[in-house]
Amino acid sequence: MMIKKIVVIGGGTGVYTILSGLRKYPVQLTAIVSMADDGGSTGILREEFGILPPGDVRRALVALAHSDNRLLSELFNYRFKAGGLSGHTFGNIMLTALERVCGNFEKAVDEAAHILGVKGSVLPVTFDNIRLCAELEDGSIIRGETNIDIPKHDPRLRISRLFLKPQAKINRRAKNALLAADMIIIGPGDLFTSILPNLLVRGVTAAIARSPAKKVYIVNLMTKNGETNVFEAKDFVAAIEDYLGQGVIDYAIINNNKPSRCRLKRYEKESAKFVEVRKMPSRPTPVLANLLRKRGFVRHDPQRLAKVIMSLL
Amino acid sequence: MMIKKIVVIGGGTGVYTILSGLRKYPVQLTAIVSMADDGGSTGILREEFGILPPGDVRRALVALAHSDNRLLSELFNYRFKAGGLSGHTFGNIMLTALERVCGNFEKAVDEAAHILGVKGSVLPVTFDNIRLCAELEDGSIIRGETNIDIPKHDPRLRISRLFLKPQAKINRRAKNALLAADMIIIGPGDLFTSILPNLLVRGVTAAIARSPAKKVYIVNLMTKNGETNVFEAKDFVAAIEDYLGQGVIDYAIINNNKPSRCRLKRYEKESAKFVEVRKMPSRPTPVLANLLRKRGFVRHDPQRLAKVIMSLL
Repeated sequence: MMIKKIVVIGGGTGVYTILSGLRKYPVQLTAIVSMADDGGSTGILREEFGILPPGDVRRALVALAHSDNRLLSELFNYRFKAGGLSGHTFGNIMLTALERVCGNFEKAVDEAAHILGVKGSVLPVTFDNIRLCAELEDGSIIRGETNIDIPKHDPRLRISRLFLKPQAKINRRAKNALLAADMIIIGPGDLFTSILPNLLVRGVTAAIARSPAKKVYIVNLMTKNGETNVFEAKDFVAAIEDYLGQGVIDYAIINNNKPSRCRLKRYEKESAKFVEVRKMPSRPTPVLANLLRKRGFVRHDPQRLAKVIMSLL
Repeated sequence: MMIKKIVVIGGGTGVYTILSGLRKYPVQLTAIVSMADDGGSTGILREEFGILPPGDVRRALVALAHSDNRLLSELFNYRFKAGGLSGHTFGNIMLTALERVCGNFEKAVDEAAHILGVKGSVLPVTFDNIRLCAELEDGSIIRGETNIDIPKHDPRLRISRLFLKPQAKINRRAKNALLAADMIIIGPGDLFTSILPNLLVRGVTAAIARSPAKKVYIVNLMTKNGETNVFEAKDFVAAIEDYLGQGVIDYAIINNNKPSRCRLKRYEKESAKFVEVRKMPSRPTPVLANLLRKRGFVRHDPQRLAKVIMSLL
């Protein structure tokens, strides 16, 4: 039996969630991660060292790190709390140093993967140095992923257009992984700041469309202020299809277990609401299941999510 | 045949020199390193994180790192040149993060050794948080290793007394290594700031004296301003014997090849002079050889030094 190849596309914490669930199965995993991040530790390192953003790469590396070495993973995610290092995660600092020592970001990611004993591959979607920009419905332009992620503008204004500056070209190895995949999974993750920045890279949507893989989209559990305020499940699917074209996505995986009011309460101050499922179109095939973590933040449970995905492979 | 155990005691760049020469031989190497460093990147990390000094540990780890992984060693020594990370070496940052994640410095050093594939052991001489202090012949007290190393006072004033504040106790594993050694090597390194801070730790001189090992002292090539300004070879030996007691050291290894005036010229501005060999006492046995690097800085050649040492083992 051939080992099946799964490619995950995303960014942010969603990448960690999906990879940490799937890593328990006998599949070959590749993570293609967004390179649009410019906030926090990543933003400072981009500015001071002119390097490509390490944050999303770091999260994917940790998710796929050798399970015998939890200490190394913990180290990689350790965030300094004092002095000039304050706010930086160790993994971001390591990727920055590796980039300097290796001469380029691609080799740095490969070496970090080697040191962490990563099972699978982590591929930046592009090696072009880009900024994510959004045009709002009033015509104003927001520059920088972090300014879209944490809106300083009126968050009720819809994003009418998302673009990269400058245009970016797909990482050749990411393209090859997409074309050779048995399954391509998009999400979960913030639609405009973690997912779509991947699809905006030239060559990505074409490679997904051309690939013989089954294509799966994982609908978010919560809306995000300034990005997807009034979105229902079908709006998330429609937004993805706007980029990929109708009929490309085969399955939309949707959570159908609404969390308690108590759990949702903490999201009120950030104006995030539970994503409701109403009147789903028949294509892509909706796959409804309880995907919710038992407690805490309203996030996907890695094991539940992985189980549903494996049933579709 | 039993593999011989060599323990090296030192600090600063001398530790790297001797270990990188000896690592090519089939011996079991242990480095006991000074914990008095408080300058540069190490000093900042001590102040901001309250950790023990990582600098000398880092140099010893790199010297003993698995030879197949030159990249990891290069990474460990990489020094950031921009922003809030400026001046820090990656290895120091890693030891700091490991200390936080592991909960103590001893485990942090062991884990770093594991990650680097270190052949041998690196043992901090003590786990007590100490400052090195010097009393000058005029009675004034200099506090901090870096203030002795780079003197702000009149450098012609002799150091009359060196002490640690507070008193420190030997690391148990360092004591065991000394007692089990076939050979104990002291130096090369700055006498007052890299070598003697080890001998000041309670339990160190007693363990050296009690050990059945052959004891070797490597005399420095150059004097150091503010520390050893007018020292000849015999003065270095006498200074060590002041701490260890007469008759403890078996061999004094001394370079007898004077570098060209051109090579010595660059040392004039730091008032460092070549260490002359005159009227050596017969005990400890002087072992004279050309130990000089072929070019560049006036430093010991790791290969030449190791060869002489192995002839005494």
